[in-house]
Amino acid sequence: MADSRMSTEIREQPDVLERILDEGWVEVLSAARTLRGGNLRSVMIVARGTSDNAALYAKYLFEVLLGVPTALGSPSAFTLYESRMNLEGVLVVGVSQSGESQDVLETVRRSGELGASTLTVTNNEGSSMAEAAQHHFFLRAGKEESVAATKTYIAELLVLYLLVCALKGDQSLGDEVRGLPEVSREVLEAEWEGTERYRYAESMVVTSRGYNLATAEEAALKLMETTYVVAQAFSAADLRHGPVAMIGQDFPVVVIAPPGKVQQDLRSLVESLKDRGAEVVAISDDYFILEKASAKFEIPARCSDELSPILYAVPIQLFAENLARLKGLNPDSPRGLSKVTETW
Amino acid sequence: MADSRMSTEIREQPDVLERILDEGWVEVLSAARTLRGGNLRSVMIVARGTSDNAALYAKYLFEVLLGVPTALGSPSAFTLYESRMNLEGVLVVGVSQSGESQDVLETVRRSGELGASTLTVTNNEGSSMAEAAQHHFFLRAGKEESVAATKTYIAELLVLYLLVCALKGDQSLGDEVRGLPEVSREVLEAEWEGTERYRYAESMVVTSRGYNLATAEEAALKLMETTYVVAQAFSAADLRHGPVAMIGQDFPVVVIAPPGKVQQDLRSLVESLKDRGAEVVAISDDYFILEKASAKFEIPARCSDELSPILYAVPIQLFAENLARLKGLNPDSPRGLSKVTETW
Repeated sequence: MADSRMSTEIREQPDVLERILDEGWVEVLSAARTLRGGNLRSVMIVARGTSDNAALYAKYLFEVLLGVPTALGSPSAFTLYESRMNLEGVLVVGVSQSGESQDVLETVRRSGELGASTLTVTNNEGSSMAEAAQHHFFLRAGKEESVAATKTYIAELLVLYLLVCALKGDQSLGDEVRGLPEVSREVLEAEWEGTERYRYAESMVVTSRGYNLATAEEAALKLMETTYVVAQAFSAADLRHGPVAMIGQDFPVVVIAPPGKVQQDLRSLVESLKDRGAEVVAISDDYFILEKASAKFEIPARCSDELSPILYAVPIQLFAENLARLKGLNPDSPRGLSKVTETW
Repeated sequence: MADSRMSTEIREQPDVLERILDEGWVEVLSAARTLRGGNLRSVMIVARGTSDNAALYAKYLFEVLLGVPTALGSPSAFTLYESRMNLEGVLVVGVSQSGESQDVLETVRRSGELGASTLTVTNNEGSSMAEAAQHHFFLRAGKEESVAATKTYIAELLVLYLLVCALKGDQSLGDEVRGLPEVSREVLEAEWEGTERYRYAESMVVTSRGYNLATAEEAALKLMETTYVVAQAFSAADLRHGPVAMIGQDFPVVVIAPPGKVQQDLRSLVESLKDRGAEVVAISDDYFILEKASAKFEIPARCSDELSPILYAVPIQLFAENLARLKGLNPDSPRGLSKVTETW
């Protein structure tokens, strides 16, 4: 079987990261100079699907690194309910691969009328969303043909990270960010162990916490889109507040456990999941967690918690693509989906 | 078999609504007078589990009825990452049945130190969260013994609705709100048709949009907690951005379709779900949607979209309780859960 487009696009990701660092940073710096002149009280990020998961990552970045309270916007508040929100001092960020997501576009437009500063992030410089905002960042990911987004997701994560760095006042980028393309290549050389065993799994839970809650949400979405597994994501904390009841013997739980403050919490979660008889699928650099897993992907490099989603998304993309192929499905064309989704 | 505590507590809900209208409104009016004197730029609501679903309802109320951008807070930004967010002009609302949710409590405390106005909503006047905030609203729901929260959820919805009315400047309540206890009694007299058919269903999707996205999330949570069905909620828009791929022949989709602007959108979703061969479980007053459903609960009264979550939550509680009993499970004590969950 020929490689899927999804697989090819996953492997283009280090080059995409490199292009953004080489060409995109200057664009971000220049927009941030204007935005920092204003009065940034809060941020609202608006997106759908995969881009909404990138938005979730950015929410933590804005709140933790920049100290600005950040909401994930509800397009229907604008499009269905015609809210006349007061958005003075609010930066509204619209994120969309195609730049043609109609409800996100409309939310950005109305936000501008309601007093917000507006910024869009898309993979199409000529898109409606690129033109509707005061600032636009181009993802430089190259055309994405697979319906399941991969390289545009990684590109969104990095561009949003650079935006927060620039708004903080950074004039140059640190070594860890500069090294991302190289480390991302190393991650792509590592391999999954044990995925075959999930050929007939019908449901899965994905969990993580903090910055990588976004990775968990994106894993669940990729699994639903490409393998039709009923997959859902929870923060480790939310999982304990109810959903854990449904996890019994043999239930597969994908645990995304990056280095940093969340790893301790995820270790204790893994232990209690094993006590319930659940199976753990682990993506981590932590031996304690990896050795308890029935399938695993060992991340070959150390990284900071805040940048880890850019690396930890790679194995979840590979897992979904592998599992789709194991099931004889074509990951590039999920049933009932098209590349641009019209919602209102 | 004796009635479950959950069933008894569901049936207490009209009385709880009545008590809040009789005794709680004055408390809310008085707090709102102080809050309106301040400078309300944005709102952040913090909660876990069922209370987080009440928070989602309140997000729409604050944004649509009051015009104030509203975020659902991430406790880990405060507890794990120790964010020093600037919260001047932000109202932080902590919601918890027990008032002892540790990460929510800590988020409220730190928010106060960071400049926010703070308000908590709990069912325990002597709880840590009641004491940690500048204002506290008491739910007056009576002791809740079932682990799966029902009457405290309804109470949270109404108290948060009253808060938004008072912040808008309402001095008295309209007829529809005043009539909620009575209409809620009518809803409790109506019955489900066709639930037996889901005895062996292993997964479900729940969908709605706008104000009732909260109802969909709460339905999924109640199903996971009490029946161990792998249930997940999506807004009708998000469902179309990927997850719909996993919905094939026979897949049960619970559609919550209240009157108002969202009903048209949900009608078209029901048609496309039927085209895929999915089964629809409907909670609605709309004949077009009800007649396409394999199981249904007809809401016997008209109501506004913005108040409908208080009525539409009742059938989802009954559905989860019924289904748990059909499976021979005790809905009052889900495996691995306790009434107060400790997370950090």
